[in-house]
Amino acid sequence: MLLKRFASTSTGTLPQTIRQILCSEKDTASKIHVHGWIKSVRQQKNVTFAVVNDGSCASGLQAVLSSSLHANFHSLTNGASVRMTGSLVTSPGAGQAHELKVDSLEILGECNPDVYPIQKQSLTLEYLRDHAHLRPRTDANAAVLRLRNSLVKSLHAFFERQDFCYAHTPILTSSDCEGAGETFRVTPSSTPTPEYESTPPDPHAEFFSKPAYLTVSSQLHLEALASSISRVYALSPCFRAERSQTNRHLAEFWMLEAEWAWAKEVDDVCGVVEACVKDALGAGRDERALLARGIAGQEERVKSLEAAAASEPWPRMTYTEAISELEKCHTSTASRTRPFAFEPKWGHGLQSEHEKWLSEVLVKGPVFVTDYPSTLKPFYMRMNDDEKTVACFDLLVPFVGELVGGSLREERLEPLQQRMTSHGLDPAGEEYGWYVDLRRYGSAPHGGFGLGLERLVSWVSGIENVRECIAMPRWAKRMLL
Amino acid sequence: MLLKRFASTSTGTLPQTIRQILCSEKDTASKIHVHGWIKSVRQQKNVTFAVVNDGSCASGLQAVLSSSLHANFHSLTNGASVRMTGSLVTSPGAGQAHELKVDSLEILGECNPDVYPIQKQSLTLEYLRDHAHLRPRTDANAAVLRLRNSLVKSLHAFFERQDFCYAHTPILTSSDCEGAGETFRVTPSSTPTPEYESTPPDPHAEFFSKPAYLTVSSQLHLEALASSISRVYALSPCFRAERSQTNRHLAEFWMLEAEWAWAKEVDDVCGVVEACVKDALGAGRDERALLARGIAGQEERVKSLEAAAASEPWPRMTYTEAISELEKCHTSTASRTRPFAFEPKWGHGLQSEHEKWLSEVLVKGPVFVTDYPSTLKPFYMRMNDDEKTVACFDLLVPFVGELVGGSLREERLEPLQQRMTSHGLDPAGEEYGWYVDLRRYGSAPHGGFGLGLERLVSWVSGIENVRECIAMPRWAKRMLL
Repeated sequence: MLLKRFASTSTGTLPQTIRQILCSEKDTASKIHVHGWIKSVRQQKNVTFAVVNDGSCASGLQAVLSSSLHANFHSLTNGASVRMTGSLVTSPGAGQAHELKVDSLEILGECNPDVYPIQKQSLTLEYLRDHAHLRPRTDANAAVLRLRNSLVKSLHAFFERQDFCYAHTPILTSSDCEGAGETFRVTPSSTPTPEYESTPPDPHAEFFSKPAYLTVSSQLHLEALASSISRVYALSPCFRAERSQTNRHLAEFWMLEAEWAWAKEVDDVCGVVEACVKDALGAGRDERALLARGIAGQEERVKSLEAAAASEPWPRMTYTEAISELEKCHTSTASRTRPFAFEPKWGHGLQSEHEKWLSEVLVKGPVFVTDYPSTLKPFYMRMNDDEKTVACFDLLVPFVGELVGGSLREERLEPLQQRMTSHGLDPAGEEYGWYVDLRRYGSAPHGGFGLGLERLVSWVSGIENVRECIAMPRWAKRMLL
Repeated sequence: MLLKRFASTSTGTLPQTIRQILCSEKDTASKIHVHGWIKSVRQQKNVTFAVVNDGSCASGLQAVLSSSLHANFHSLTNGASVRMTGSLVTSPGAGQAHELKVDSLEILGECNPDVYPIQKQSLTLEYLRDHAHLRPRTDANAAVLRLRNSLVKSLHAFFERQDFCYAHTPILTSSDCEGAGETFRVTPSSTPTPEYESTPPDPHAEFFSKPAYLTVSSQLHLEALASSISRVYALSPCFRAERSQTNRHLAEFWMLEAEWAWAKEVDDVCGVVEACVKDALGAGRDERALLARGIAGQEERVKSLEAAAASEPWPRMTYTEAISELEKCHTSTASRTRPFAFEPKWGHGLQSEHEKWLSEVLVKGPVFVTDYPSTLKPFYMRMNDDEKTVACFDLLVPFVGELVGGSLREERLEPLQQRMTSHGLDPAGEEYGWYVDLRRYGSAPHGGFGLGLERLVSWVSGIENVRECIAMPRWAKRMLL
């Protein structure tokens, strides 16, 4: 038999990253290998200092290269990829505890400084968006990617502790959960090849036997799963064919959605949201410090975040109370110009300016607004006893606005059927009949919420536009890579 | 100010699930509350036994109800949702260590046994697929959901230990990474409303200014990120408009894809794959035991899995060696009927029957087949020095076939440009120009792999068809919910 069983020194363990090397922080006589990209170079008479980073941490590692090294110092430029061998020693200089005394240097990939699009000087957001494939090479964008990773880890850890099951709900679906109508349609880009079907296919026939759309929310599907395994959550891409160009909207974004059985009060759902978001506020401190340095006026935001993380239960007010506060502000202002462009009025949606005022001015921190009028909300939210409002909430946070939305779901068969009919949906139809079925067999009170991941990144990092909060953003008229 | 600061007993901590209660396994005088669905009921003269489960574990909890309870025993049927209060006591019966002595019972949601579609008797796979919204209520499907959760957790934990950054790559893209052509096209389902655009929109104009497709792989995007933060992975939905109806293919499936800089040998990439998959083989033991009970002939598979988890480095052979072994088998068989429908031949792809023979008959376990002819593989794989084969591998496992595919990527500018041109791709074009750019500025040797999550679930669980390995499967002509 010709089987070549490699003696294989490969244990599946990769060499240490620069972050790991710096965390171990030990002077070592033994040689270590460091890979990374050159971030800066400072040449002195007999010695060259270079900062090298593999993107694993905010700081990178200072490398000290003696001029006696047989190496191509000419190629040691910003952006070049290198392999260095040397020893980690205590740094005599300020700014870092340890540095790498380099014994040998290998340039793996040169980077011509005359044409490299990522120059050291500050580049505009728009320029970097145009260079989406190279944007991660900036310190700021790399920090956002690591911060996002830290936030997701924190969310996963929270739900694992609470015994939730992570689930994958479908991206392709036939229903439009939010009823907003701004969906994307999906069709195969080519007709089938004859090898699979003996009769010529009907080009008008749907691939899935019915029209397919990209999901706008995993909620309805999560409800089906929560009717069996009680506690489920998904971290899933969602899609809206939104043509408006705001700094809070993307055509493709990621949502953390959780759904659980046996929830009976909106207040309980808010409690879980608050615990989960407060946890996340502790994530990625190095990255946030790096990002705060790059943005003007960050002190206020950072202070507000720290206060939110430390504060007692975040305030909760009903929509009716919120409207009353907004009306008071709108009419009592001494100045002749009203503070809001839109008049706050019971029965009307809260505008972005209203949401900001509630969290930034009135509460000065995160605030839950609960029990909105049923006419403003989707059919699946549980009707309150007043028959006017539904058992729901939005979590509003400073600088961002709505971060989370959630509710109890209508678990009673007849009230759900009534709501659907009044929303023009057929409770017995193919599209939503299955959803009604969940109330027919062992229905359980339940609730849940959805959190926009890019908005969480935006709030925590202080980055204003969600286009900088995801690696490769998509919005109307723009899809690079 | 009208702010109502709830004194809020809600700490964000949910009550214990049945799994958590059983893990704590303490007799307790204090009352506990249990929520769940009735799984079975056995009535005796003075006492009723009911198994209740909230889907958090394989076993559920036995509840003992005295006939003196003031409760509606008539509604205590399979599928009903209940709330029970009582104390956890040592069980005198066989089959469980603890049971719940019930003090009070509340039926939250009835389930009429005459019409409930999920009856106790065994239901066919096809029937359950038709009842996709209720399928999770079967013990087997709930176990698959928890097993999938455990596998994903294991994968996340592995990459976290190796200092990888979890990333979200785009689902909507303009490129077709694998060049297979079986993509889905995405268009907005409605034209914009006039409030966003003052001029009437051109219905033929693309929403993203160019055609958008659903991704078939995150790899190219991960390569861009690995050129900055070195180690990245994604767990992402992928889509193929595949019309073939096999038990290994779905139109929507999830892929774990990892990519990292500084990898120089295929052997190193295989080492990471092996460590990661072996880790996963330890996940979800309770669920796998439950699932094995339901499937005939599981002993051999379970034994083979245990051997794989425990074995020394999995064998690695080149494609050339594999073909030679297959040829030997094909021609040396004594019987006149050849063992393979497709003749194994250098330069031709390995058929599913070949892959199964290699892992199930020749190696009797997982095997890496490396260095396939370049003509069989996509443009991005690194050319070997022989100029005929590429530095790639497939991991073949018994009962499933290909579980993982990976390679070193061509990091040298000119060889990449040549491969692209010979594949009919424009190295300077808008679609792939950015990908070539990654080799222009500080290029680094790198590699990675993709693992089909449903196939991993299938291998580990012994469930033959991937349609049972995801909550709500989509394939040609079929999209429920």
